[in-house]
Amino acid sequence: MTMLTLLTDFGTQDTYVGIMKGVILGINPGATLVDLTHQVAPQDIPQGAFLLGYAAPYFPAEAIHLAVVDPGVGSARRALAVQGPSGTFVAPDNGLLTYALDLAPVGDAPGGNGAEGSETHTPSPGSLPVREVPLPAGWRAVALENPEFWRHPVSRTFHGRDIFAPVAAHLSLGVPLEQFGPPVTSLLALEVPRPCRTADGALVGRVIAVDHFGNLLTNLTPELLPAAGAPTFEVAGRRIAGLSQTYADGGELVAVVGSTGRVEIAVRNGSARSRLGVGVGARVTVRPGGSPR
Amino acid sequence: MTMLTLLTDFGTQDTYVGIMKGVILGINPGATLVDLTHQVAPQDIPQGAFLLGYAAPYFPAEAIHLAVVDPGVGSARRALAVQGPSGTFVAPDNGLLTYALDLAPVGDAPGGNGAEGSETHTPSPGSLPVREVPLPAGWRAVALENPEFWRHPVSRTFHGRDIFAPVAAHLSLGVPLEQFGPPVTSLLALEVPRPCRTADGALVGRVIAVDHFGNLLTNLTPELLPAAGAPTFEVAGRRIAGLSQTYADGGELVAVVGSTGRVEIAVRNGSARSRLGVGVGARVTVRPGGSPR
Amino acid sequence: MTMLTLLTDFGTQDTYVGIMKGVILGINPGATLVDLTHQVAPQDIPQGAFLLGYAAPYFPAEAIHLAVVDPGVGSARRALAVQGPSGTFVAPDNGLLTYALDLAPVGDAPGGNGAEGSETHTPSPGSLPVREVPLPAGWRAVALENPEFWRHPVSRTFHGRDIFAPVAAHLSLGVPLEQFGPPVTSLLALEVPRPCRTADGALVGRVIAVDHFGNLLTNLTPELLPAAGAPTFEVAGRRIAGLSQTYADGGELVAVVGSTGRVEIAVRNGSARSRLGVGVGARVTVRPGGSPR
Repeated sequence: MTMLTLLTDFGTQDTYVGIMKGVILGINPGATLVDLTHQVAPQDIPQGAFLLGYAAPYFPAEAIHLAVVDPGVGSARRALAVQGPSGTFVAPDNGLLTYALDLAPVGDAPGGNGAEGSETHTPSPGSLPVREVPLPAGWRAVALENPEFWRHPVSRTFHGRDIFAPVAAHLSLGVPLEQFGPPVTSLLALEVPRPCRTADGALVGRVIAVDHFGNLLTNLTPELLPAAGAPTFEVAGRRIAGLSQTYADGGELVAVVGSTGRVEIAVRNGSARSRLGVGVGARVTVRPGGSPR
Repeated sequence: MTMLTLLTDFGTQDTYVGIMKGVILGINPGATLVDLTHQVAPQDIPQGAFLLGYAAPYFPAEAIHLAVVDPGVGSARRALAVQGPSGTFVAPDNGLLTYALDLAPVGDAPGGNGAEGSETHTPSPGSLPVREVPLPAGWRAVALENPEFWRHPVSRTFHGRDIFAPVAAHLSLGVPLEQFGPPVTSLLALEVPRPCRTADGALVGRVIAVDHFGNLLTNLTPELLPAAGAPTFEVAGRRIAGLSQTYADGGELVAVVGSTGRVEIAVRNGSARSRLGVGVGARVTVRPGGSPR
Repeated sequence: MTMLTLLTDFGTQDTYVGIMKGVILGINPGATLVDLTHQVAPQDIPQGAFLLGYAAPYFPAEAIHLAVVDPGVGSARRALAVQGPSGTFVAPDNGLLTYALDLAPVGDAPGGNGAEGSETHTPSPGSLPVREVPLPAGWRAVALENPEFWRHPVSRTFHGRDIFAPVAAHLSLGVPLEQFGPPVTSLLALEVPRPCRTADGALVGRVIAVDHFGNLLTNLTPELLPAAGAPTFEVAGRRIAGLSQTYADGGELVAVVGSTGRVEIAVRNGSARSRLGVGVGARVTVRPGGSPR
């Protein structure tokens, strides 16, 4: 199996991605390369982490996922290769693997002290704090410190080309993980905002990503929603009554459990982001059906 | 032959396309995947249909074309696999195969009753009406109703991942068409605008697509043009005398038979869309050379 | 080896690139296709030439590079296949191979007569003059004149599909270069601006490309910089003291030797283009450390 995915914030206007592919194919001409996306917003680690964590499970466990959103390139940040039940990941140690490895979100837990409190764990995108967490059970990781598998000379500014790509290519040829550097037992995880409850029992979630269609993806999952009655969703001053089954039914503005298994706010044949004028970080408040505001 | 093309309106900012590729390669790791485009305007079935119909003939007839522009996902619309002389297509039944199967355009025929009448068959992009038409001779089709070839659980919002991609992958492994569901003998076709003639003998075409360069692609083909003399083209209040042979000759604004075999309005080293301020649906009136307006 | 790269200004919104791939895979189904970029600005030969020349060396020498930025399509401009130590290139003869073949830049040499003079060799992007230069030693080239390897009928507007793609595909199958047309011994090269010195000893470079992050890539290389002391860079009225080692160290605005081996002006976690309001053609003046302005 020599399937390799690539996720970066390099865009497709330049040839940085093509160059990484040239380096990989020069080492392993038989690799099958798949682009996840190269349009992560520049330096936006939370967005890259979300997209990587969402996409990787749809690939065979033998796939190698190369992820480079790396504002700290050339600084002291570590570079990692991590292997476990759901695949092999090659990435900088900056939180980019938070969702892919299902690292416990370390933001405030649900049940916090109300709406005001919830404000404190919604940093702007690209600037979520990170915290060191232990490597989950079933995973092995190494720091990429063995220059034997790098491309030389190593640039200070493009480790994607000089370290991550050649390491991923050698991994795809079957080189054992341990040869790339010393083992590590912890890595950095993003402090991801989690839903919380207000004093009056409302559930407060956040928009954590916006997709190409303008759908607002939240951190709310169906099992968190009120069990009885159709819940009401409030976002950007608008109210939505109940969960719809598809984008096509319900009114113009709908709440639907999307393909990521999360509640999404969507506009039928349109963009919820444009219509509501909100994006990542926006609050989505859920109340039991029929409850007064 | 395991060549699979993909055309969607998913964009490349998210990982939806990458996820579909992961699903396909998990079923058929040897598939060769080719992106046609993922930048169809969201939910714009006419644009997707045009692009698919234009591109598919350049691939070997053994290729499988997976096309997902699917605003009705999760609703009652059917999902289809269609096989015929020019390839195999997997798509929702919503008009997306209109050009690829050369379904008879069912809008008003040429020779309509003048300029006013022609207005009635130019709906805005994304909203062309559809009509049920018989499957053309030489083609077989099935409705995708056999869940054996789906990915489970099936989401209500992402059939590209859960139905279309796995079906296309199994087709590429040689599973016979009939196994995917019951046969169908008709499908939906877009009512595409067709050129018509005014009472005074002018030919009135429409812009049916705009490409990346800003070239305006019309529904006019060379054989419709006046046989004698250099025709005059009128678009957005500008007149163009005669057909040019290439984008590089003629004046700044040219009419040229483009690579699709259709008359295009182009600006030398620039964008006709920007320069003229018009797009899909704009009228292009053709008169014989030298004829008074 | 059947590795083929593609670089065009076709964008990814249309299916032009997909169509070229269909043509290639119809001839050589085993080809491995890699996109360099398709987002060269329309008709911007200098940008395409820079990106191609930067990326190609990272591929194996057996790779075939198909490059189509071709505003003169259908006119008298020649089409070329060129083979040498660093790869095989298939492209129009319009300067697009200037960097890839390391054709001697033929603009004013360094050491010109001062700052005023330097203004004369900075045409706007897309309009650099070209000059005929001899084919470098070690390279062979032919004009693509043998229709046996074309796709018919040949459009006047899409030689990428009808000439360049099928020729590249046949080359990838091992057809010898000489069979595609008569040998040529010269080709067109862009007159690329080169750094020069002012009367008072300052070094004046130019921004020659801007990447996706907004980093300004200059024509300055480290060996041109003053040997003693930390140099000062002046661009858009701002001064930068010294070269930084990485994007992450130094102040907000940094000068760094980037992955292309050239001095880049960058903004930490931001866009230098946006912050400084300048782009291709902008002057970057270098003075020895501590020298008065």
